Amino acid sequence: MSDRPGVKVALIGVGLIGGSIGLAARRVGARVCGYDPDPHVRASALELGAIDSQASDIPGVVAGAEVVFVAAPVGALAATIGEALAHVGADCVVSDVGSTKRAVVDVASADERFVGGHPLAGAETAGVEHARADLFEGATWYLTPAPGTAGVLYERLHRLLRSFGAQPTAIDAFTHDRLMAYVSHLPHVLANLLVTQAADALDVDERLPAVGPSFRDATRVAGANSAIWTDIYLSNRDALLGAIDELAGRLGEVRTALQVGDAAAIAAWNERARSDRDALLGAGLAGGIGGEALLELRASVPNRPGVIAEIALALGRAGVNIVDMALSPSEDNRQGIVALWISGARGLERARELIAELGFPVARA
Amino acid sequence: MSDRPGVKVALIGVGLIGGSIGLAARRVGARVCGYDPDPHVRASALELGAIDSQASDIPGVVAGAEVVFVAAPVGALAATIGEALAHVGADCVVSDVGSTKRAVVDVASADERFVGGHPLAGAETAGVEHARADLFEGATWYLTPAPGTAGVLYERLHRLLRSFGAQPTAIDAFTHDRLMAYVSHLPHVLANLLVTQAADALDVDERLPAVGPSFRDATRVAGANSAIWTDIYLSNRDALLGAIDELAGRLGEVRTALQVGDAAAIAAWNERARSDRDALLGAGLAGGIGGEALLELRASVPNRPGVIAEIALALGRAGVNIVDMALSPSEDNRQGIVALWISGARGLERARELIAELGFPVARA
Repeated sequence: MSDRPGVKVALIGVGLIGGSIGLAARRVGARVCGYDPDPHVRASALELGAIDSQASDIPGVVAGAEVVFVAAPVGALAATIGEALAHVGADCVVSDVGSTKRAVVDVASADERFVGGHPLAGAETAGVEHARADLFEGATWYLTPAPGTAGVLYERLHRLLRSFGAQPTAIDAFTHDRLMAYVSHLPHVLANLLVTQAADALDVDERLPAVGPSFRDATRVAGANSAIWTDIYLSNRDALLGAIDELAGRLGEVRTALQVGDAAAIAAWNERARSDRDALLGAGLAGGIGGEALLELRASVPNRPGVIAEIALALGRAGVNIVDMALSPSEDNRQGIVALWISGARGLERARELIAELGFPVARA
Repeated sequence: MSDRPGVKVALIGVGLIGGSIGLAARRVGARVCGYDPDPHVRASALELGAIDSQASDIPGVVAGAEVVFVAAPVGALAATIGEALAHVGADCVVSDVGSTKRAVVDVASADERFVGGHPLAGAETAGVEHARADLFEGATWYLTPAPGTAGVLYERLHRLLRSFGAQPTAIDAFTHDRLMAYVSHLPHVLANLLVTQAADALDVDERLPAVGPSFRDATRVAGANSAIWTDIYLSNRDALLGAIDELAGRLGEVRTALQVGDAAAIAAWNERARSDRDALLGAGLAGGIGGEALLELRASVPNRPGVIAEIALALGRAGVNIVDMALSPSEDNRQGIVALWISGARGLERARELIAELGFPVARA
């Protein structure tokens, strides 16, 4: 089993995210080897207990690994993943932690050993000295399996991430990047604009006049780490440009309603925002995995590449969390059973429907 | 003294803010009479202890009052303040709690008994049932005295607000409204746009895919109470349109840098936002009144209208908090002494300079 004590993890890059993966993996008994282009960072990671051993290059760090995480800057991701894939064996899953996925997946998705990843954690600070074993607890960890992804490798990665306390959630790379443009990258752009505009406009003498908490909330992420965010903005620029253009159009509509003093239009626009917020975040809040009973579902699936990716993506799209999963081949090796553990009866029922729609027989509970 | 037990406060409007003023005033021993156009709201306020007694109209509630707070919707403010001023005596200060100040001040600033006000508290919920005696504790309470404002009435209002735990801060109405457009009204507009755009774009099936905390922070105020916010947006539309146009221009600049892939420009823009945020909010955080010693400053001032407003505005502009103040006339009644209590040696020194610049002799400590 892939989650036995001693699973061999390799980290390429041991900063905040890589280092936290190392701490989390060692806590669950994995053996962790780390490489970082900066030897001082490697030494710090070793000293902080984020890795058991270090290697001085990529071939060295991935030798014998069962799971490889590439935690390189977004700009260097594709090349680094390519190098890792060139040196790992057939029974090894390679993933990354980049904030945008399309560019990476375009390069590596032909390889059945690769699964793109993006943990929603810790983009504000950097450095292995801030690494924490619990950084991913309760965090969504997006995975972007491709049609050819090997099911057994996807399962191994999923279980390891679950052992970190994260919730792995499958999503296709295009949707992921568009989602991030709307809910993360554009809000970061606006936070930057708001603070700079306020600073320029207010002619602050000795300090900012008192402001309510709304400004603090709206600008909390302004000026996030430039080294990280410049890469993020540029690597997702197609989706971000689309989101910016859409925002500019919507801003123009509000401007018109304000200028002509159309109170009814302003009120309707505001009410719409209220219901959208309730729908988006109210539902999101209720969608956690805590509290509800874990229910098992078993389905027969053909033994061909892509089946697990298909199921994971369908459930991810529908917002059904796969809390845990296990694959077992049948005796003739042409079929297999996938067992999924889903949170709550409603999630289970939805998973059952979706898997049946994909054409795979689901066992009755 | 105006802060003796039993100061007579009248409230016109006893919703969240009016009701909280009533609770805070009664806690410090004031007698509070309340009026609200809705008799059920008046009854609730009485039952909740936010007022001692009720009146069924404006002339009735302000009879004998020493301090009147108008807590009417922004759209009805100017008319209500006018009616209150028509019925109060000469020794009564009238204030309001509206989120925009220019429209109100344009109407009422000719009256020496009027001081515009805006507590930075509680715009998200409404209703007397949410009123709290401690709503204003630690909150900035902007005051917009006019050149003709009577010093003794300004002092009375200032001391009463201090007794609520608030920090009264003088600011001119034009600057106040411009400030609010940049740090509150525009952030609210953007929060609305972000949620609606995300809802439209994401084609949410059963719930929002997981998002990081940045989206939650950026949209916390989306769809705030429409009855309140439609008035706020429209009453401050000149300043808000200016802020929107400026934002659109800045957004266009970022768009260009993204489109051409200018990493250096993106990084510089992000760094600029970082330093602006540090300057704005870092300084704001450090500028509280807690902890530092309270120091007294005494100045001789001529006994003419507007002197106290002048001093309060000069100190407010410079970010120096007047924690408390007291006025005492000299024997010949042509001069007077104003005593100010300022937080910290640096604030005291700055206050001393500013008051000397205004031409008023400051006593050595």
